[in-house]
Order: sequence, then structure tokens, then C-alpha cells
Amino acid sequence: MAAVTVYGPPLSTAVSRVLACLFEKEVSFQLAAVDMAKGQHKAPDFLKLQVGFSFGSAFRGIRLEQTPSDGSTYSAESRAISRYICDKYADQGYKALFGNSILERARIDQWLEAESQNFNPPSSVLVFQLAFAPRMGLKQDPEAIKENVGKLAKVVDVYERRLEESRFLAGDEFSLADLTHLPNGQFLANAAESAHLFTTGTNVARWWGEISSRPSWKKVIEVQLAPVSS
Amino acid sequence: MAAVTVYGPPLSTAVSRVLACLFEKEVSFQLAAVDMAKGQHKAPDFLKLQVGFSFGSAFRGIRLEQTPSDGSTYSAESRAISRYICDKYADQGYKALFGNSILERARIDQWLEAESQNFNPPSSVLVFQLAFAPRMGLKQDPEAIKENVGKLAKVVDVYERRLEESRFLAGDEFSLADLTHLPNGQFLANAAESAHLFTTGTNVARWWGEISSRPSWKKVIEVQLAPVSS
Repeated sequence: MAAVTVYGPPLSTAVSRVLACLFEKEVSFQLAAVDMAKGQHKAPDFLKLQVGFSFGSAFRGIRLEQTPSDGSTYSAESRAISRYICDKYADQGYKALFGNSILERARIDQWLEAESQNFNPPSSVLVFQLAFAPRMGLKQDPEAIKENVGKLAKVVDVYERRLEESRFLAGDEFSLADLTHLPNGQFLANAAESAHLFTTGTNVARWWGEISSRPSWKKVIEVQLAPVSS
Repeated sequence: MAAVTVYGPPLSTAVSRVLACLFEKEVSFQLAAVDMAKGQHKAPDFLKLQVGFSFGSAFRGIRLEQTPSDGSTYSAESRAISRYICDKYADQGYKALFGNSILERARIDQWLEAESQNFNPPSSVLVFQLAFAPRMGLKQDPEAIKENVGKLAKVVDVYERRLEESRFLAGDEFSLADLTHLPNGQFLANAAESAHLFTTGTNVARWWGEISSRPSWKKVIEVQLAPVSS
């Protein structure tokens, strides 16, 4: 049995962030299906696993099941889980994912915060509007799309300048700070209304091309496209 | 000379977050004044220290100056700096601030994300509207205040349920996950329009009373109230 169990659909941006991290660290895992249409993610047993971390209506159903030596523990926030995976499996897979020193880690943490505070809010709205609303048969909100494309463009401008002087966000090596952008970025780089954000700036285009072609991320997309077994 | 230099005004919520952390870890530091009225925080030399981390118009002028053995490094994001201080000074001061194991750290990281993603956005708007706008002679926006009090109330509701089962956010020990709420919380617990958010819920009221009376936080307030030397 794999050491790690991830609960939730791989199309979820939070779940796919964790999967990319597991592939980078070469950690074996199993996916446990959660039937959101049946409300399983709101079942008491499942909510308990989220240890009180239940903000908004967004799906936050990731659980990391530990090996017996660790005891049972849970986490529902994908960036916290990603950091944990890097610590737990420090000596395997791509070792520089969370840096090789506490100084490198501080730089990575800074750009992880850039993603969660600046990139994620507008890009999450856009992922919902441009990718999920059509699949769910919900009406799109053109005003929200326009407003958040504008907000995201400002964030991408900061990245464009940063990536002028640095190959990746936190320095010369690919890190968790880059990886964390892949889940939302994937949907938006493929949507007509937002694709230009990933191609207009020379540096962002180079960076996006490089990080989105990591073998780990290609494996995540394979998992997302695989037929669901039950 | 103190090992750490913090650039920026102690009334800044980002700066005071870092100061609380330094006091908890018993790290000596010096404050370097930055004259925002003269635009020093936008001077090229200062922006360079922010290593490209320049989102929005918010002041992000913290620099952590390392001891020579570390070389020079900078960070402009207060949560990344706080994590770094905990790693760098792991063996001194309050040792449990960032947990005693990678599992504890994962739980703390989860609630640090709760603060930066959920608590911080509405509370930052309120800090500006309720505390800084009046000091700066700017007009308040009643709609923005009402909207963000509503948003913050929903976050506080999640905390109220979490703190029913746990003394602090990440578990039974005070941690960085609690500390990170102090800067914005201090302004809002003292503003007529938002004070109720910190007193209505029994568990939040208990938690807020406990964390805001930490000796480290009282020292931060002393620094904030001290006359500025030049």
C-alpha cells in the first residue's frame, strides 16, 4: 500500500498541486475518490479530516494519510501539504524543490506567499469562470472575468520583471514556488480569455513553457485525463 | 551590532509581525527607519532589496540583514521572514513557535495559510479603513467597511468552531499560526466597527485574550508607542 493517500478529484487545483509535488519527490500514493456530486466532501467524517479548515464553499478535501510511525494526521491546505511532503521526503526525488538551505527556503516561501496572496485570488475566480462554470452548466459572469483578468495581469507584470533577472521565481532552480502556479495556470493558459497572460511577456512565456513541461506536471495531466475507476 | 536589521515602521502590520517573532525567539535586532513620507520606500536602492517583490501599492519594506556567514539576503514578505527566523534561531527563545516536528509544522503551516488567504484580505482592508485612513486624513469608505466586516465575520466563525476543540489554532501550543493574526487583530480589536468580532464568540474571545497578552506582543506595542529617534 502506498504511504500517502490523497482524497479528492485530480482536476481540483488543490489536489493537482499536491500530486505534482508527490511526483517531483517520487513518492508513491493512491488517490481516494470523493464523490462531490453526492456531497461526500461535506459528510461529517470527511469534514472531521479537515480539522476545522473549512473556508467558504471551495472544496478542500485533501487528506494526507501518514505511515504508522507518524500516526494519523491530516491537512486540508495544499500549500501546507506540499511543504510537508518536501520535509518528509527531503532525501528523495528532486531535492531542491524546497531549497537546500534555510536561506533558499526563505526565498521560496516568499514566492509561495506571492502565489497564495496575489496570484491565487484572481486566478481562482478565473479558473471557476472559464473552466468549471461551463462544465457545470453555470452561467459565466463577464464582469468578474474582465475584472480578474485585469487583476491577474498586474501580478503577471511583477513576475515578468522578476523573471528578467532570475530563471525561476525564487532563483536559478525550479522550486515549489514555481510548481504552486501550475494548477491554476494550466486552466488559464488554455482559456481564450486569459491565454495571453502567459504568452505576452517574454520572460513569463519562457518561464511558463519551462515549468509546464516538467515531467512531473505531465504526469499530473495524465492522471487528470485518466478514466475514473470506482 | 544586532544580527538582524528590520527596515520599516513598527506600526506596519508586516513589520510588527516580524518583530513579534523576533521577541518570541529572543533575537536582538535593530530597526532602520524608512521615511515613507519622503518616498524612501520607493527609492531604487530600497526597491532592489525587495528582490522584485513589489505587489500593489502596499509597503513591503522589510529587509532581514544576515550575519556575514550567511551572506546578504533579503526578504520582503513578513510570513516568509517569520518562518525563516524560526528556522534560523530554532534553539533559542520560545522553541515551539514553529512546532517541534514536521507534522506540527504542517499543522501550523495550514493555519498560517488560513491567515494569509482568508483572514488577511478582509482584515487588511479594515486596518486601512479604520486605523490608517483617519490618521492620514483620508475619507473612509463605509461600503468597504461593511462588506469586509461581513467577510471577516465568516472567517472568525470558522475560527470559533476550530477553537472549540483546540486551545490554539494549530493545536495545544501557541504558535506562529496564532502570532500572525496579532498585527491586524490589534487594530481591529480596538476599532468600534470591528471590536465585536473579537469578543462575541466565546472561544475566539478566550484565544484573542490569551495571544494578545503574550509578553512578546506587549513588547511590540511598546516599540510602536516609543518616540521615533532619527
